[in-house]
Amino acid sequence: MKVVLIGAGNLATNLGKAFKKAGIEVVQVYSRTKKSAKLLSDILVCNWTIDVQEIVDDADYYIFSVKDNVLEQLIIDVCSHIKTGIFLHTAGSMSCDVFKNKVNKYGVFYPLQTFSKNSYVDFENIPIFIEGNSIEVSQQLEMLAKKISINVYTLTSEVRQYIHLSAVWVCNFVNHCYSIGQDILAQHGIPFKVLLPLIYETTKKVSYLQPKEAQTGPAVRGDKNIIEKHIKLMHDNPQWQELYKNFSQNIYDMSSSKKKHYDKL
Amino acid sequence: MKVVLIGAGNLATNLGKAFKKAGIEVVQVYSRTKKSAKLLSDILVCNWTIDVQEIVDDADYYIFSVKDNVLEQLIIDVCSHIKTGIFLHTAGSMSCDVFKNKVNKYGVFYPLQTFSKNSYVDFENIPIFIEGNSIEVSQQLEMLAKKISINVYTLTSEVRQYIHLSAVWVCNFVNHCYSIGQDILAQHGIPFKVLLPLIYETTKKVSYLQPKEAQTGPAVRGDKNIIEKHIKLMHDNPQWQELYKNFSQNIYDMSSSKKKHYDKL
Repeated sequence: MKVVLIGAGNLATNLGKAFKKAGIEVVQVYSRTKKSAKLLSDILVCNWTIDVQEIVDDADYYIFSVKDNVLEQLIIDVCSHIKTGIFLHTAGSMSCDVFKNKVNKYGVFYPLQTFSKNSYVDFENIPIFIEGNSIEVSQQLEMLAKKISINVYTLTSEVRQYIHLSAVWVCNFVNHCYSIGQDILAQHGIPFKVLLPLIYETTKKVSYLQPKEAQTGPAVRGDKNIIEKHIKLMHDNPQWQELYKNFSQNIYDMSSSKKKHYDKL
Repeated sequence: MKVVLIGAGNLATNLGKAFKKAGIEVVQVYSRTKKSAKLLSDILVCNWTIDVQEIVDDADYYIFSVKDNVLEQLIIDVCSHIKTGIFLHTAGSMSCDVFKNKVNKYGVFYPLQTFSKNSYVDFENIPIFIEGNSIEVSQQLEMLAKKISINVYTLTSEVRQYIHLSAVWVCNFVNHCYSIGQDILAQHGIPFKVLLPLIYETTKKVSYLQPKEAQTGPAVRGDKNIIEKHIKLMHDNPQWQELYKNFSQNIYDMSSSKKKHYDKL
């Protein structure tokens, strides 16, 4: 099984390492820049190129891990001289059909994780959501995905969008909450690390409690005094004030509707 | 050293267990309801009461862990017959001065953690922020806190408010992001557990990266296409749309100002 990685960013790097570990051969890395193409090919011990025309035409899989806004043009460029193999992308919010009428066999290979180049991620427990343009392709993708993860799910492009959306909430927005917490403390000379035990416990709780059951704090208690105090403390940052207000209102509304829901039962 | 716990909620329960483990005697639990007073006193093997007048008057510490809106009245009621001992509360956003002119020795004992009654929390690494109304009280509080935690900090009421505010961001609002993620998936029949590896990794990252360096996703990339798609997907929930927009704008603005900041250096 021969794989070409198109793109050499965080996702491609981690995926390439996982393939290598599973004995799947990455034969070539393509990237727009020599630096990142070479960097990843050094790790995977394979060829690299920055010329689309030099991408080998005999691989089994071409996996595109590039920014959404360059994906479509890159597919057109690559497909101009490569006609066989299975074409895949790894994007949460791009349809499988971005390959339609360009190649015969295609699909999506979407690992749900946040990747950094320098942080090792064990793929085994990462959910991989796959989609093929035919039953045959889907089956092949399932086999490929199961070589690196025990959590493989077949999913339509339609539903995959919602996975991506929820990932933005539980990863990107959560991380931004950490940033804001850090900034608030830094203004008073307090290091971020004092928050870490609280951050770990908050995460740990949702492994055995429903998030709604784990909710604590002034908003769920409807403690208007604290909420007003906190909003005043952020007087020099209207964006944070707005976010804080909307969060508190939504927490209160969602917990009230839950209570109403229970009252009905 | 004899402690009376006033309140029998999540914080009092966990604090009582930590005291017991450290060999500090909790002699009595007061709560408004018999059920919770008895429940906690059973765990701690001590007396309980629901009558303020029956609270023993010879303890060394009276620790109030009750809702902010009942704290002040409860202090007045308890102090009507108890004149000695050190009076403490555990609230992030209440001033130390809530005890002023009511008792002689008082302070704050604020453990920064999210507590559930049924989840065991190891106090050792939990930061405890203390404040006494005199140097003598502060020293006694420091000794008490160090019996259960290795992270003890002296802090004014003024700065403690900001600790509480940042805790709301990194705990309460983070947990609400988990709730929203769960709800979005549930609408499409996908279980919350698929998000757990992503949630763990997001938390793990900030133990060795600054949150701003760990930021990923469409907002920090300025990927307007995805942002617009996501907002459309939430068409039946205007509150989430508003939060999503504000989050994305703030992530983008904060990362841009960081870049500008770097450009200046």
